[in-house]
Amino acid sequence: MSHLFERHRAVFERAQLACQQRHCWSPYPEMPSKYPDAAAAQAKGLTAFQAQLGQPFALEQPGARDAVGEEVSPYTQQPLGITYPRADVDTLFEAAEAAMPAWAEAPIATRLGVLLEVLDVIYREHLFEVQQAVMHTAGQSANMAYAGSGVNALDRGIEALVYADQAMRAVAPTARWERSFGPSNIVLDKTYRLVPRGVAVCFACASFPTWNAWPSMLASLATGNAVIVKPHPATVLPMAISVRVFRQVLAAAGFDPNLVTLALDTVAEPIGKVLVKHPKTAIVDFTGSVRFGQWVEANAHPALAYTETAGCNTVVLESADDLDAALRSLATTLCMFSAQMCTSPQNIYVPAQGVRTPAGTVPFDEVAQRLADAVAALTGDPKKAAMILATIQSPQTLALLAQLKEEGARAGRVLLEPRAYTHPEFPGARTSTPLMLQLDTSARELYGEERFGPVSFVIRCADAADALAQATTDARERGGLTAFLYSSDESYIAQAERAYARAGAQLTINLTGAMPLNFAAAYSDYHVTGLNPAGNASLTNLAFVASRFCISQSRRPAPAAAAN
Amino acid sequence: MSHLFERHRAVFERAQLACQQRHCWSPYPEMPSKYPDAAAAQAKGLTAFQAQLGQPFALEQPGARDAVGEEVSPYTQQPLGITYPRADVDTLFEAAEAAMPAWAEAPIATRLGVLLEVLDVIYREHLFEVQQAVMHTAGQSANMAYAGSGVNALDRGIEALVYADQAMRAVAPTARWERSFGPSNIVLDKTYRLVPRGVAVCFACASFPTWNAWPSMLASLATGNAVIVKPHPATVLPMAISVRVFRQVLAAAGFDPNLVTLALDTVAEPIGKVLVKHPKTAIVDFTGSVRFGQWVEANAHPALAYTETAGCNTVVLESADDLDAALRSLATTLCMFSAQMCTSPQNIYVPAQGVRTPAGTVPFDEVAQRLADAVAALTGDPKKAAMILATIQSPQTLALLAQLKEEGARAGRVLLEPRAYTHPEFPGARTSTPLMLQLDTSARELYGEERFGPVSFVIRCADAADALAQATTDARERGGLTAFLYSSDESYIAQAERAYARAGAQLTINLTGAMPLNFAAAYSDYHVTGLNPAGNASLTNLAFVASRFCISQSRRPAPAAAAN
Repeated sequence: MSHLFERHRAVFERAQLACQQRHCWSPYPEMPSKYPDAAAAQAKGLTAFQAQLGQPFALEQPGARDAVGEEVSPYTQQPLGITYPRADVDTLFEAAEAAMPAWAEAPIATRLGVLLEVLDVIYREHLFEVQQAVMHTAGQSANMAYAGSGVNALDRGIEALVYADQAMRAVAPTARWERSFGPSNIVLDKTYRLVPRGVAVCFACASFPTWNAWPSMLASLATGNAVIVKPHPATVLPMAISVRVFRQVLAAAGFDPNLVTLALDTVAEPIGKVLVKHPKTAIVDFTGSVRFGQWVEANAHPALAYTETAGCNTVVLESADDLDAALRSLATTLCMFSAQMCTSPQNIYVPAQGVRTPAGTVPFDEVAQRLADAVAALTGDPKKAAMILATIQSPQTLALLAQLKEEGARAGRVLLEPRAYTHPEFPGARTSTPLMLQLDTSARELYGEERFGPVSFVIRCADAADALAQATTDARERGGLTAFLYSSDESYIAQAERAYARAGAQLTINLTGAMPLNFAAAYSDYHVTGLNPAGNASLTNLAFVASRFCISQSRRPAPAAAAN
Repeated sequence: MSHLFERHRAVFERAQLACQQRHCWSPYPEMPSKYPDAAAAQAKGLTAFQAQLGQPFALEQPGARDAVGEEVSPYTQQPLGITYPRADVDTLFEAAEAAMPAWAEAPIATRLGVLLEVLDVIYREHLFEVQQAVMHTAGQSANMAYAGSGVNALDRGIEALVYADQAMRAVAPTARWERSFGPSNIVLDKTYRLVPRGVAVCFACASFPTWNAWPSMLASLATGNAVIVKPHPATVLPMAISVRVFRQVLAAAGFDPNLVTLALDTVAEPIGKVLVKHPKTAIVDFTGSVRFGQWVEANAHPALAYTETAGCNTVVLESADDLDAALRSLATTLCMFSAQMCTSPQNIYVPAQGVRTPAGTVPFDEVAQRLADAVAALTGDPKKAAMILATIQSPQTLALLAQLKEEGARAGRVLLEPRAYTHPEFPGARTSTPLMLQLDTSARELYGEERFGPVSFVIRCADAADALAQATTDARERGGLTAFLYSSDESYIAQAERAYARAGAQLTINLTGAMPLNFAAAYSDYHVTGLNPAGNASLTNLAFVASRFCISQSRRPAPAAAAN
């Protein structure tokens, strides 16, 4: 099977270099238009997706009990009508355990080769089908579904393989060991075996399913484990397509396809806790809500738990050389996919005195208003709004917006009211422009946690020092994945870098222009630090992979001839 | 401070090579007699130890409330009379947190240099003082206290530094990242900071305090954390000496000595749970009892927990080319430090049909008797017994022996009765020769857990396959660190290697001769796999170090000149 590794060796070695140097690289084109024979591929993907609507999803895996399917497209607000086999959980675990020994005993390069082939098959044969699936479950725009949920997620998968390989290669497979004990010379041959932890359960979230799930699955599989994938019931199709590809490629390579299976539930009958507490569960990867994520962290034992939940991502606006450019960048990022990304900013901390600029200090109220105006400008035209805001994944988000608008009006000032906009291609789409509120730090209970969806808070702080202290305290105590700072004061920047490093939020400083502020580059940006409640693991570093396997050794006297 | 690293660079680089190739190496002489100017150094160590008896231990650290000391020498059964400052726990945590930032921001090589200097100072100035301290608390023989608790533990410390360095060096400190977004080119300078998890609590055990504690402390310190050491109240002195050296070397290097402090308790007023559940605890390293270790694993969250507890280490005796040689090696290892090592074998599984040898099959009863005879031969002469058995660390062990003798007589046959022997140098020593019991597998409740002390069980199994199945099942379900196999059947050996690899016990095959079977070599043997209840961590691999720090990044546009 190592011919598969040979097929992908050049890409893998290039990815190793990128991880080491953390520069920009990807084997994939950034934009759908640059995909080979793009129009045909897109048409084929759309056809595959449409053919699936209203049909049972073909997935041959053990233990099927019945069929379930609850997905509703945020673009049409109509059910997709796809049903998936719901399997008996014990059967899935037994099948996963039975599949593991041959997989675990295969050479590292064999496993890597098979997994690189999986990513390549997804890219070559299913990328636009996944794109459509992500659009009509998570509700992302076509471009984001291609980039963030497609090629960037594939990159993150390769990245996980690079680190898994590095951790495994750090273990010598064999050694000869020779020492005298008194007058005797003892020569031992030692063998070090990499033993997988066991069955991993990978939870995928509703709004961005593939982005963490692919690298998590690959980290577990590369190190010899089996994976049971548990998608959010609202967003099954992207993971169902993924699981089917994994199974096909594994089987074609001569391995048991039950190394990867799909465990389904419904909103009414969730099985998350059953999976986490299953006696055969050895690893849990979780992306999703803070509430369930914290339960996973506290209850997964003896299984390992790797979590990414959410937090109140913070912005500190202290001073700016070009305030308009900063506000434009912030506005864009606040709008991107209606702030339904775990990296979207939410809380904007501004000194009460205002923001210093070369043209003088801009008062707090004016900063808040200009930011709201910048957001309004981006979302006023439905065509532009559609590209940037896309849709609202869950109806609950609309309810939350209504509730927060009321609470915010009582506690502070509504800077921008949310409203539905009419999507030019999908008139039935579930949409909303952002809600923006202006508050004081006394309203921390309103902003001191993630409010999932297009909601942001402009927070009046005592002064610049208070803004930084409030922001980093909120990140550290309430969780935060990303952070954004605008300041022209180098000593303030240095202070912020130190404070955010300890708070564990990944900081972007003074970025303006065409790059979305919260863009996270595979091979270069670490996602989640593990230092605050927004998650306990980082994708991808050595810690994310090194505990997924153990080292069992055996040793015995070397053959007499060799020993002398 | 990097002059300290330069001073130790050659040793460190040599240790890196040893860890990579896992061959035999140590910078230290194996035997006390080979220590430079050994006689003078030993005399100086003895003097230092004796001068400490009956005196308060001088340790300047914050928060002292009162003084406690309960140590009793297993060699004299007299109190050592040493009192140690007992500190307020909250004060220790606050001091540890305050000490961390400067330490965490120091370059990796600076931290490594300081820690290598600590090990060197222990070796050059305190090794024989530690030896005496270990003898008169843990009760080890002089040779074991020198080797296992001295130079081998130092080696394990260096090994932990090698892996910590490897994990940290895998993270690029900076990167330049450049990509186009549409027509724009974005150039970012990125900085990746290693951020320690926080305050680590390191529990040291009563019978082998330094062996795991030194590498655990070094793993935490190298990655920027502070460590609070919590020794077993019966064995404080070796860790108190260690902590004092750490503090002196840290202070001399310009760092806050409160990076390493000592937290004491008494048997009557234990503080273990308080330390584990302290809100500032970020890491727990635990070596000790199964019961408390399991509590730590289940309750340490949100702190990371690394545990080594105990298990029923197993022996499978299927066939042997030289049965006498095998039995001699087993007998020696059963006697070594009265089997008070976490690696000591306990359960010996033998087919009911007996053991095949070139001279024919030796019946089960005869094998059991010959093994008991071999143990008796080693322990009959008090001088030889003293060298190998040393003393019994805890009076509770003698009570356990008495209880197990009664229970064993009811459930099976007593092969060897324990009795005190008179230590030639220390007539008041707490001693016992081993208890050996012969049982059937129906008596699993007697042997299916660690029975701490000189106790072993010869277990009659249905046949060779049953012997292997019983042994590996017990290791997997009840825990096991080491395992030992004698077989001349290569296919049986291959089967055993596979079964023990999955059970997670480190296997030694057909070893006879001068090397103690359970000898674990730093840089070469992995200690604990993490795959069974005997512990969740392996000393030392990447997984043991990689989660002790996190990666926080910041990124900002590159200066305009650099960006083009």
